[in-house]
Amino acid sequence: MSGSGALRTGLPGLLFDLDGTLVDSVYQHVLAWQEALAEEGIDLSVWRIHRRIGMSGGLFVRALAREVGKQISPELAERLQQLHGEGVARRLSEIRPLPGARELLRHLSAIGVPWAIATSGRAGTARRIVDLLGVPEGTVVITRDEVPYAKPNPDLFLAAAGRLGRDPRDCFVVGDSVWDMLAARRASSLGIGLLSGGYGREELTAAGTYRVYDDPADLLAHLDELGIRALEGS
Amino acid sequence: MSGSGALRTGLPGLLFDLDGTLVDSVYQHVLAWQEALAEEGIDLSVWRIHRRIGMSGGLFVRALAREVGKQISPELAERLQQLHGEGVARRLSEIRPLPGARELLRHLSAIGVPWAIATSGRAGTARRIVDLLGVPEGTVVITRDEVPYAKPNPDLFLAAAGRLGRDPRDCFVVGDSVWDMLAARRASSLGIGLLSGGYGREELTAAGTYRVYDDPADLLAHLDELGIRALEGS
Repeated sequence: MSGSGALRTGLPGLLFDLDGTLVDSVYQHVLAWQEALAEEGIDLSVWRIHRRIGMSGGLFVRALAREVGKQISPELAERLQQLHGEGVARRLSEIRPLPGARELLRHLSAIGVPWAIATSGRAGTARRIVDLLGVPEGTVVITRDEVPYAKPNPDLFLAAAGRLGRDPRDCFVVGDSVWDMLAARRASSLGIGLLSGGYGREELTAAGTYRVYDDPADLLAHLDELGIRALEGS
Repeated sequence: MSGSGALRTGLPGLLFDLDGTLVDSVYQHVLAWQEALAEEGIDLSVWRIHRRIGMSGGLFVRALAREVGKQISPELAERLQQLHGEGVARRLSEIRPLPGARELLRHLSAIGVPWAIATSGRAGTARRIVDLLGVPEGTVVITRDEVPYAKPNPDLFLAAAGRLGRDPRDCFVVGDSVWDMLAARRASSLGIGLLSGGYGREELTAAGTYRVYDDPADLLAHLDELGIRALEGS
């Protein structure tokens, strides 16, 4: 890590969340969680699950437990996460990359901007979703399994910046949920919010987002607003 | 209609939206729309569909067409609405009343507060969803088919107030979407927003909501904030 302060000028890196940010998979995650919880006799409204998506699975289960006023043992938490993973796998055929996601990543690579993916999901599920993006071999993908704590802790983004060899202050974090934005701030990165995960613009703004765009296509069309340009033109 | 000004004191009526307000069905509607659109070769991100849910089906299809930059013929619009209805029907077994919905409606009836349901949905689908609530025979349910224009036009709420024999100014409108809140204002009713449809608090507030609650259970627990009480105690 250099502390070179690329955000002040230069060429920042981009750290992407996965679900709702690059891939249109939030609603499948939500319904898979609802199904997993119902299977264990826990009835929870869909919107409450949506509002927690993007958190670490452990925190997520604990937060939901609090909302339903139930004790959740570590064994049950593990079982719920297992059921959720299976539910997402069953819905994989419904899941598509978000508009502009592949083009954005290809463009960043083409102009020499370093980027990585950092997700609260576990490696098994995350890998299958990353595959939908057709990213090149060697893409940096940090999953839940590789860090002590997931979002809203900053670990995932810190690890991703480290793997890119950059100071997190020289990286933008791109995400769709308030948990991404909160984790970004703890990592000292600036947060770019995307509406494509279903959160409202005002919620993301209230979480300290630097800029908000519709989806990856909209971000790609406005990269100049972030001072991101081809190296030769910098 | 009496113009008696019950909101200023007295006993207001309540006009309820259905999906996301009384029943946890928004995500099923969203995925049914996505499926219907995909079947006709229109790929649209889930969040864009969610943001339009609660509008009239016709307006909805036109708004989506604008977003994808496609002409949609009346025949295609009709076919999409048909496919959507079938998609919801296939998902009916996943759909549950929201927490407190049945209790709230029973309580209102018990204390003599007039209430009705007014939904942008069509009669066929709406009836099957209303049935999940176990409402009594004779409940006033106004559907898309009965009025010239659905939300955000005020027609549905005006018709519902009329069927209750009340001035819309003497009714609260309870809904989960900005379209409910905008329609409420055009009807001169005060809007009560519920978060249970997945919209954020700030979005609902920005649409002119009078108060925001989590879901029907939360509204039931705070009826006194709206000055709604049993007749004998008034």
